[in-house]
Amino acid sequence: MGAVTPKPIIINGTYINPELGKYHARLRTIARSCLDIKEKHGASQDGMYILTTESGTYYQTFCDMTTAGGGWTLVASVHENNINGKCSLGDRWSSQQGNDRNLPEGDGTWANTVTFGTAEASTSDDYKNPGYYDISAQDVSVWHIPNNEQLKSWTSSAILRYHTESQFLAEHGGNLYHLFKKHPVKFGAGQCQSDMGPSSPVVYDTGDKDSTANLYGPNTTLCPSGFISFRVFNADQAAVAMCSGVKPAECNPQRYCIGGGGFFSDRQQCGDFTALDQASKHLTQSAVLLFYR
Amino acid sequence: MGAVTPKPIIINGTYINPELGKYHARLRTIARSCLDIKEKHGASQDGMYILTTESGTYYQTFCDMTTAGGGWTLVASVHENNINGKCSLGDRWSSQQGNDRNLPEGDGTWANTVTFGTAEASTSDDYKNPGYYDISAQDVSVWHIPNNEQLKSWTSSAILRYHTESQFLAEHGGNLYHLFKKHPVKFGAGQCQSDMGPSSPVVYDTGDKDSTANLYGPNTTLCPSGFISFRVFNADQAAVAMCSGVKPAECNPQRYCIGGGGFFSDRQQCGDFTALDQASKHLTQSAVLLFYR
Amino acid sequence: MGAVTPKPIIINGTYINPELGKYHARLRTIARSCLDIKEKHGASQDGMYILTTESGTYYQTFCDMTTAGGGWTLVASVHENNINGKCSLGDRWSSQQGNDRNLPEGDGTWANTVTFGTAEASTSDDYKNPGYYDISAQDVSVWHIPNNEQLKSWTSSAILRYHTESQFLAEHGGNLYHLFKKHPVKFGAGQCQSDMGPSSPVVYDTGDKDSTANLYGPNTTLCPSGFISFRVFNADQAAVAMCSGVKPAECNPQRYCIGGGGFFSDRQQCGDFTALDQASKHLTQSAVLLFYR
Repeated sequence: MGAVTPKPIIINGTYINPELGKYHARLRTIARSCLDIKEKHGASQDGMYILTTESGTYYQTFCDMTTAGGGWTLVASVHENNINGKCSLGDRWSSQQGNDRNLPEGDGTWANTVTFGTAEASTSDDYKNPGYYDISAQDVSVWHIPNNEQLKSWTSSAILRYHTESQFLAEHGGNLYHLFKKHPVKFGAGQCQSDMGPSSPVVYDTGDKDSTANLYGPNTTLCPSGFISFRVFNADQAAVAMCSGVKPAECNPQRYCIGGGGFFSDRQQCGDFTALDQASKHLTQSAVLLFYR
Repeated sequence: MGAVTPKPIIINGTYINPELGKYHARLRTIARSCLDIKEKHGASQDGMYILTTESGTYYQTFCDMTTAGGGWTLVASVHENNINGKCSLGDRWSSQQGNDRNLPEGDGTWANTVTFGTAEASTSDDYKNPGYYDISAQDVSVWHIPNNEQLKSWTSSAILRYHTESQFLAEHGGNLYHLFKKHPVKFGAGQCQSDMGPSSPVVYDTGDKDSTANLYGPNTTLCPSGFISFRVFNADQAAVAMCSGVKPAECNPQRYCIGGGGFFSDRQQCGDFTALDQASKHLTQSAVLLFYR
Repeated sequence: MGAVTPKPIIINGTYINPELGKYHARLRTIARSCLDIKEKHGASQDGMYILTTESGTYYQTFCDMTTAGGGWTLVASVHENNINGKCSLGDRWSSQQGNDRNLPEGDGTWANTVTFGTAEASTSDDYKNPGYYDISAQDVSVWHIPNNEQLKSWTSSAILRYHTESQFLAEHGGNLYHLFKKHPVKFGAGQCQSDMGPSSPVVYDTGDKDSTANLYGPNTTLCPSGFISFRVFNADQAAVAMCSGVKPAECNPQRYCIGGGGFFSDRQQCGDFTALDQASKHLTQSAVLLFYR
């Protein structure tokens, strides 16, 4: 009998090939996205997997291997810990340092590599993993899940789920990190209407255009639903980051868009869920989970 | 010679079986608690091990394989970073957002899946790992360790150590996450005396009933020591989470219990170590480590 | 053919030897520093590697395998998130709890085992990994990298890089954790001039003595450049932690040293970048990365 071939070992759907040790000081073939895991390793179960960045940082996250063909990587969640806390602790997607004209970009989370939280707690706290800036993707999927729901109940408890099929991300650098580098979430960096970032139509997985409009209430009467939109300015040049389910058509996006820079003329608008106070509690008491594919 | 059987690989006491790669995209047999590691894999050394949650999230923590038969998993620590900080930064087991009637549950840490800190720094900072909500256990063990002691000195430096043998956790969902879902640490959710959560007698590993009483000082004169008690209200309906070593018998539990909701009528009582100012410095300058078995 | 020898598996340059499973519940040979990886496993590529502490805690960090023979482990970074935030959120290397005479050591980060951040985000946020307190080293290397630069551009974008060759760390416990245990960064614990901590000459990798002096501006006119210095008091007995590139020769070190205790007589001096407002923006808008070897 000849040489014994070491068996490949699969951890969380990713290969750790013993032979690689001979040739490389570091492994270079572990998957960088849930889509890669699905396509290269044939994994088809929803759940937690280990991924790696281009630089070789390992991290764990949830893969949705089911929706519209699967291969979706959970990269972030926006969770409002205190709707009355105005750019205070826990407002990582706007500013945790108070409403401050000297911090026009706030914490800068949308366009930096800082990470926090865990996938399993992403309905109870803000979450951002290295996939947010590392994965090269074409589309996004968004899940609105009631606060504190556990992973096994996410799909059944969702109040709204949709994804894009327009491949719009590919035109903006392949992920939101690059999209927001190009379209900074920064007070004073643009004007309402004239400087809107990208927008894409969406395909619904839970809910539809009407249920989306109902979740937001009267504030979106002028705005068509069935879209996701990014980096929008209000009448005072304050920047909001993401409008989930709608396309702004007037100059008060803080009433239905989330995340933002670190300064708003009205400090009541500063925070991860900006000025969504008039939206339904279903919406304001749900976390917004972001996936890439 | 026939087929070559791949050797099992053990990382931190947990098997990574190469054969599993053939059948499962994810490993399903890695241990979920230190007790499992002890019973299934025969590990007997105290130290750091890798565990996994039911959903497949890996994490590292300390296993006590010695005390009373071993198999204890460190799942959390309560550390007071600033006894004068009243529900301010670092008060993760009560509220980091100030004493606020609108946040009756504070940060909600006792009953959610948010995790923070590391085992090695659990005497220098708050700590909570996925085992807190994932492990199914029967008993708790509690260690009071002087702040900043390093892992190798924990046992020798402990000022108080005890465990339960009553299997009381099994009656409350198998862990503190479920216990506190049932008995919310929430201002206004109950009354002193009539709405006390569970209590269990303890067996001492370091110290005894007298040394426990001495650590707390005159405030526990009315309260029997030799117990651990959970979710207790004071005269003002403010909730505290855990009374380590004692069973409340009057209506000022904030003087000897730790953790709590986000509102106290007297804001001086708000914080991870509530109003323990009159307890001994040995106690207030020690972290409280929580184990499950 | 006889017994089949299992092949060693190398993950990120560190061996996971299948045979170990027979003898040890936990692996004890995985490398504890980038120098070990280089010397024992022959790795020569810069990049992310997995290390372990003596206690068995695994973590990931960046290894510089190139500079002056390589083997440098990134253990920390000091990042100023808001030059106007005075001992506020994000000032982990001084205090996040306000300028407070009752917290003379502030958050205590220089001399405890608390960890935070990630290597990949170390130019966008504070970073500290277990290597900071676990590795036994002789020298330090320091990189000043513009905020938000990504890992692949660190070397090319550096505004200042140097290392020591004096082996001074070996005389102070082998790392900064031990050095600062001996020389506490604590208000009131010493006097300007008479109680300075250690200082070492440096060898430049990017820049030189003149460019160092230019980065700091007029405040260092009296101080020789070409050194790194630790734990220095100002005229008011406030403690600063590290003077990168210079050796203090007067009693206003807060103008060119970073990190500190939790109290300064002038609260404008409290913060991770203390009172560096008069230094060049190149310097104040760069993160300070710390390596051990």
